[in-house]
Amino acid sequence: MKININADIGESYGRYSIGNDSELMQMIGSANIACGMHAGDPTIMMGTIRLAIDNRVSMGAHPGFNDIWGFGRRQIRMRPLDLEYLVTYQIGALKVMAETQGAHITHVKPHGALNNMAHDDLDYALAIGRAIRAVDRDLIYVANATSQMTKAGEQLGLPVANEAYVDRVYDDNGKMASREREDAVIRDPGKAASQVLSILENKALTSANGRRIPVDIHSFCIHGDEPTAVPLMREVRRHLAHAGIEVVSLPDLFGFRRDEGQMRSWPL
Amino acid sequence: MKININADIGESYGRYSIGNDSELMQMIGSANIACGMHAGDPTIMMGTIRLAIDNRVSMGAHPGFNDIWGFGRRQIRMRPLDLEYLVTYQIGALKVMAETQGAHITHVKPHGALNNMAHDDLDYALAIGRAIRAVDRDLIYVANATSQMTKAGEQLGLPVANEAYVDRVYDDNGKMASREREDAVIRDPGKAASQVLSILENKALTSANGRRIPVDIHSFCIHGDEPTAVPLMREVRRHLAHAGIEVVSLPDLFGFRRDEGQMRSWPL
Amino acid sequence: MKININADIGESYGRYSIGNDSELMQMIGSANIACGMHAGDPTIMMGTIRLAIDNRVSMGAHPGFNDIWGFGRRQIRMRPLDLEYLVTYQIGALKVMAETQGAHITHVKPHGALNNMAHDDLDYALAIGRAIRAVDRDLIYVANATSQMTKAGEQLGLPVANEAYVDRVYDDNGKMASREREDAVIRDPGKAASQVLSILENKALTSANGRRIPVDIHSFCIHGDEPTAVPLMREVRRHLAHAGIEVVSLPDLFGFRRDEGQMRSWPL
Amino acid sequence: MKININADIGESYGRYSIGNDSELMQMIGSANIACGMHAGDPTIMMGTIRLAIDNRVSMGAHPGFNDIWGFGRRQIRMRPLDLEYLVTYQIGALKVMAETQGAHITHVKPHGALNNMAHDDLDYALAIGRAIRAVDRDLIYVANATSQMTKAGEQLGLPVANEAYVDRVYDDNGKMASREREDAVIRDPGKAASQVLSILENKALTSANGRRIPVDIHSFCIHGDEPTAVPLMREVRRHLAHAGIEVVSLPDLFGFRRDEGQMRSWPL
Repeated sequence: MKININADIGESYGRYSIGNDSELMQMIGSANIACGMHAGDPTIMMGTIRLAIDNRVSMGAHPGFNDIWGFGRRQIRMRPLDLEYLVTYQIGALKVMAETQGAHITHVKPHGALNNMAHDDLDYALAIGRAIRAVDRDLIYVANATSQMTKAGEQLGLPVANEAYVDRVYDDNGKMASREREDAVIRDPGKAASQVLSILENKALTSANGRRIPVDIHSFCIHGDEPTAVPLMREVRRHLAHAGIEVVSLPDLFGFRRDEGQMRSWPL
Repeated sequence: MKININADIGESYGRYSIGNDSELMQMIGSANIACGMHAGDPTIMMGTIRLAIDNRVSMGAHPGFNDIWGFGRRQIRMRPLDLEYLVTYQIGALKVMAETQGAHITHVKPHGALNNMAHDDLDYALAIGRAIRAVDRDLIYVANATSQMTKAGEQLGLPVANEAYVDRVYDDNGKMASREREDAVIRDPGKAASQVLSILENKALTSANGRRIPVDIHSFCIHGDEPTAVPLMREVRRHLAHAGIEVVSLPDLFGFRRDEGQMRSWPL
Repeated sequence: MKININADIGESYGRYSIGNDSELMQMIGSANIACGMHAGDPTIMMGTIRLAIDNRVSMGAHPGFNDIWGFGRRQIRMRPLDLEYLVTYQIGALKVMAETQGAHITHVKPHGALNNMAHDDLDYALAIGRAIRAVDRDLIYVANATSQMTKAGEQLGLPVANEAYVDRVYDDNGKMASREREDAVIRDPGKAASQVLSILENKALTSANGRRIPVDIHSFCIHGDEPTAVPLMREVRRHLAHAGIEVVSLPDLFGFRRDEGQMRSWPL
Repeated sequence: MKININADIGESYGRYSIGNDSELMQMIGSANIACGMHAGDPTIMMGTIRLAIDNRVSMGAHPGFNDIWGFGRRQIRMRPLDLEYLVTYQIGALKVMAETQGAHITHVKPHGALNNMAHDDLDYALAIGRAIRAVDRDLIYVANATSQMTKAGEQLGLPVANEAYVDRVYDDNGKMASREREDAVIRDPGKAASQVLSILENKALTSANGRRIPVDIHSFCIHGDEPTAVPLMREVRRHLAHAGIEVVSLPDLFGFRRDEGQMRSWPL
């Protein structure tokens, strides 16, 4: 059995550092690289691209709202068309930067409040999907399982990777519980590993209230900006290895062949 | 005889409008499209790309410092490497946005204070050039005649288009006179047309003090944000037509063939 | 009978101009001056302060979300405490800049999407109110009639000015109809003047659907960024003069005495 | 003998943390609080103000260029008038925020590249000085010893505090050596303490090349964003105590009396 693990990476900004990218990069299959709007700057982006290449990690764009102060975690209500172009812009910048290093991005994963809003709002989910499709219809749309993004991706004919979180508690609708809840973020490695194995074994999320929500997960995500990310990831990997589950990149999981055109030469 | 005319276009931002893009676009051969850092936003960029396609105008990236307040006209001293990636980022964003519309960018022209600094500073000129080359070594580097940018472009093996300004007075070093000078900007159509014809006939700039600086010009630039841009351009075009000089796009001037790979399918 | 007319002023930004501030300033009693977050920059702010002083117009802070691209018209969901300090920051900056010119601000009026959100959301309305009160409990909270802001201002013991719009259509809840509606903005001078007189005579708003919502209005607002602002205001003033209604500043309307401490020396 | 120690504080931004403010605040006499342009946001500012009050540390504004990406360390060339208002804006915002907490700012210290440029450029130094004087002519202008800021402050009749750095090497002009030099930043506590004592005893800076530059220092500054700030400060304080030199706040050093009008009630 194969699974992907992805993390938000490259979320430092200028003199401000966040996360433990160099360690985390060794433990994931795919990196969601911030594109300069909610975090990341051109220099950070380039360094993160090289780090991903060095670690043979596949890369994707991690577009967010244009909001450094809010780290992309403030919900912003905008016209879907403006959002579509804002996402296209970010994917474009990262795509070309990766190509200057001989690499190709293979997925897109929205960030923070954009991800949360697109979970429920089909207009937002479609705007993101149209941006992805306009750039390259082989880009994988990484979408919260049970969300409108999954629906939008399918509707637009994009490859969709359903994801669940290693480090977040779920509510009864299969959505991440709000960060305002005390227990929203899982920081205990054992608890995180249990959640991952439980989701795979039961083919379902279990909400904080114990509700079972059926899902078929391609990828597990971890928040790179949490100081606990590395120990959590280590424990999750240990449990996955023990269960005989291999961690691969998203393009490997989706059976993309390398060296056959643009999308086929991600880090190898 | 053939010549290119280029203008800075797409420099509106959100609710703020500047310039007369729709009229100006009908009179130029190539558009330098702002990339979101000194001006332009993703929605403006997309609209400008479509306007260029509709007018069969070739497109280029117009990267600037990240400075909306200063409209990219404040000199910012930064590490050349940071500048290189800042420029790569902007070219990348515009390139991919153009490609979503079936068009390709064919040149890069730095904006405002970045252009002024790179005129004299080889490190800046090279940083811009390396960004261009990393993205696509067929992209034309539009450079002030007599500047370090011309030198950098040649050194890096890029196609270089020497440019002069329709609407700016020159100093004795062949550099645009500072905007702090009362007479720095030419707003009289007749004077602008005379400057253009004089440069072409004499193969030289004539400075405000009457000094002759030999140049071989490929392209004339006009500032799109000036309210006088349209009447100036009209008069310049009239004089060029009268002199039997044809205005073409930059890729036409450089003999790029269309439909033979990525760089060959700019508008039309 | 006396009434105030206020307008959003000073919403240019760097090289970008918007609105017709110098003409509009001659026709209003009070100016809501943008504070650098959604529009305005320090130089624009200082110029606007001087323009207000020259026209003997009272001044207030016009705080908005930190969002130049969106012109403060994108709803941003943030913690009320962060909002409170964001508003305090903006009031503070304007207050001190006005004081360097010997003037004092006398009111606060939230901008755009912040105003819209605070209309319905008591937490936001209170956050704004707490910011106002922390700075100076004599500052007038200019609040949409029928809104949670009115309630918040009263609850906090602030002077509250109920306002209605000259140039906006109302929905059945007494809220400005969304800008997405074709007819949301009134651009016909006669229609604007009728709306103003009708509100004063009937002591009620009349919604687009004809519903009557009782209100007691202290101030009418006009959007300074609309190109029709000046003709609308001219017509409104003409009708008010004809009806014998005097236009005064907010501190005059509220009976503040001048020259008796800080709050008492607004322009003149 | 009395001396002041100041540090740049409150330079975090949104989700990004930098420096060790809570420990550092216990060891300094005066805090230069970032004002939202190069670092700091309204929530960070308010938290820093409270931290200063709790530690009985006097507060000053730490205005910088509007440049979060560059952390205010990129030189920006702008019109002195724009700079003056940019500084007024920042002082104003912090001043009023401090007043909402019952405290008053008593000094202004420019940040990073603005500080470096104003060291040599009298126009910049005067622009900052005019901003300070416009807000309150009792505010202390904290200025690099030997700089144009000292001259500007004196020329404008402001109280001037000459400062030297605990953690920076000096060049032969009495200016901090560029950060591009390997040894520009002193991270060894013993070396930092020696520099401080040497400057006080010799009434002179000693440059990296051994040149002696006479100075009369009121205040020593430490960079709060360096991870070594706390151990350096501890060692410096130990040496100062041993030498019988008392560390006091800037207003104490300048003999401001408390509780006699606005400037007299800084934290006590």
